[in-house]
Amino acid sequence: MKKLGKQTIILENKPKFISNYSVVGPKEGKGPMSKYFDEILDNDMLGQKTFEKAEQKLMEKAVFGAIEKAKLKSNDIDMYLSGDLLNQIISATFTARKFDTTFIGLFGACSTMTESLALGACLVDGGYINNVLCSTCSHFASVERQFRNPLELGTQRPPTAQWTVTGAGASILSLNGDKNLPYIECVTFGKVTDFGVNDVNNMGPAMAPAAMSTLVAHFKETGRSPSDYDYIFTGDLGKLGSEVLIDLMEYNNVKLGVNYCDCGNMIFDKEQKTFMGGSGCGCSASILNSFVIEKLRKNEVKSVLFLSTGALLSTTSSQQGESIPGIAHAIVIRRD
Amino acid sequence: MKKLGKQTIILENKPKFISNYSVVGPKEGKGPMSKYFDEILDNDMLGQKTFEKAEQKLMEKAVFGAIEKAKLKSNDIDMYLSGDLLNQIISATFTARKFDTTFIGLFGACSTMTESLALGACLVDGGYINNVLCSTCSHFASVERQFRNPLELGTQRPPTAQWTVTGAGASILSLNGDKNLPYIECVTFGKVTDFGVNDVNNMGPAMAPAAMSTLVAHFKETGRSPSDYDYIFTGDLGKLGSEVLIDLMEYNNVKLGVNYCDCGNMIFDKEQKTFMGGSGCGCSASILNSFVIEKLRKNEVKSVLFLSTGALLSTTSSQQGESIPGIAHAIVIRRD
Repeated sequence: MKKLGKQTIILENKPKFISNYSVVGPKEGKGPMSKYFDEILDNDMLGQKTFEKAEQKLMEKAVFGAIEKAKLKSNDIDMYLSGDLLNQIISATFTARKFDTTFIGLFGACSTMTESLALGACLVDGGYINNVLCSTCSHFASVERQFRNPLELGTQRPPTAQWTVTGAGASILSLNGDKNLPYIECVTFGKVTDFGVNDVNNMGPAMAPAAMSTLVAHFKETGRSPSDYDYIFTGDLGKLGSEVLIDLMEYNNVKLGVNYCDCGNMIFDKEQKTFMGGSGCGCSASILNSFVIEKLRKNEVKSVLFLSTGALLSTTSSQQGESIPGIAHAIVIRRD
Repeated sequence: MKKLGKQTIILENKPKFISNYSVVGPKEGKGPMSKYFDEILDNDMLGQKTFEKAEQKLMEKAVFGAIEKAKLKSNDIDMYLSGDLLNQIISATFTARKFDTTFIGLFGACSTMTESLALGACLVDGGYINNVLCSTCSHFASVERQFRNPLELGTQRPPTAQWTVTGAGASILSLNGDKNLPYIECVTFGKVTDFGVNDVNNMGPAMAPAAMSTLVAHFKETGRSPSDYDYIFTGDLGKLGSEVLIDLMEYNNVKLGVNYCDCGNMIFDKEQKTFMGGSGCGCSASILNSFVIEKLRKNEVKSVLFLSTGALLSTTSSQQGESIPGIAHAIVIRRD
């Protein structure tokens, strides 16, 4: 372990991705990433009576999918790090109830995938915990009715809106496993950043300053530049948010080039009418645990800088006139 | 670092409490713990227009109080680990916005104080982060209106009810500092445990099984017994919950003796009509960062086993018929 500045840590013991699993809803399964997902649902209710219970089943599918794929049993997992967007992260806690392992509940909104992986990677690297399971999820219908309007109202969506992904992703980190597996080489923890955006239907630009803050710190502390990575991904800034990020980075004299992608721009195509693209914890979680890991596993890609980005609002904070702070944690995934 | 079993870790580098700060509301300031708190508010609105904004100010007071007491500046803090009970932990995230440090948002309901300290202690022990600030808070009025009823309704409280503490606590952990300071010697991470209690006005018995689960694991994995500690504290089981815990431990052949206390039983006296006692994140946070640390600092006490206990429900989960899972993380605080 080597600390670089205040935010970045190089992990010298190579916490490996020994398993990854992704599951998405029918709409996401018709998008451009379709062939990479482990599982595509026919019906996004998953046999449940409520959207929230369906979301929890989605989390369970990702978690137990990852455990099975690793040929492990659930009690081989030493710690479960998870969170989601629902009040009191009930998708994560009710999933944790289903197996016999220690649990750390997280809240980082849509930054949860890399929040859990960055923390988990430090704990694994230091030998504190061995098999750490990290997951998150989101469901279009539960999130819309909690944060905005129930779908049944048929409210018109403004052109800046993004579409919350129905999806989940899970990763298992461990020091064990084949030496060719992708591993987390470096983490850059993010700071809460708020540029004063207060439009709950325009989350990309609200989160872009947080992505900028973490990227600038990462490049400064490591001495690296964007071209040192095969790919740089942000979580769910969407079309507008990722354009804002490119501009903000230019002000900081960092040029994000053709190797920069945003998961929110990748998961749907234009015909799917999601306006600014995908969002939600499940957006970066499902892309990381499918497309990104597959490219690394197949040795088509050697190094990836990945940031999930979260908007830290509640309906109460917005109704009381607060702006929307954001946060982004970055991980560097490599393979030898 | 030495791992004992699957849940317990001995920290050999002694992450020290270099600062602690506690702040409570007027009612808590009239209770038996009065003389130990750093700050007692005259008015629990803290000059704010809403209960939620008041709760956030309470968190800020604890956080900046701890930083000032340590004679540090806010940018000497390398990471801020925090969470609270409000939807999307807005008290924590909006406090994090006020200073320039990396942030990990947690949700463990009323277990947050020891969730943050257990995680923070591992990160400090491993050298990943140096100065870690851990905090949590709760506010009677914001919690009542979010989870139960707005106070303005004047709803009658059932006899099993507990009183959410208006209070906050913050600790700074570091490897630096005087060798006589209290330090975290050991952590036992908790598992989500659910015995099927579904009464949102009877949280103590809902959380007691989680406290039992963690205590049983702790004693089994360390080979220690309750008499090895000067004090054992649980967070906010209250009168009924702590009696349930004593019974549950007896079934496990562990006798909790006179050195066992519950913070919920300590913070109010009988005349204050809180029925089963105090609860909320701020309950164990304010007692740990005042009474407990003071006893250790003054060398009146050498070893403490401390568990904050959390009930992982949301209004949605309860309305949809779910029971209330609990969790408890334990830390052992010692001084040489």
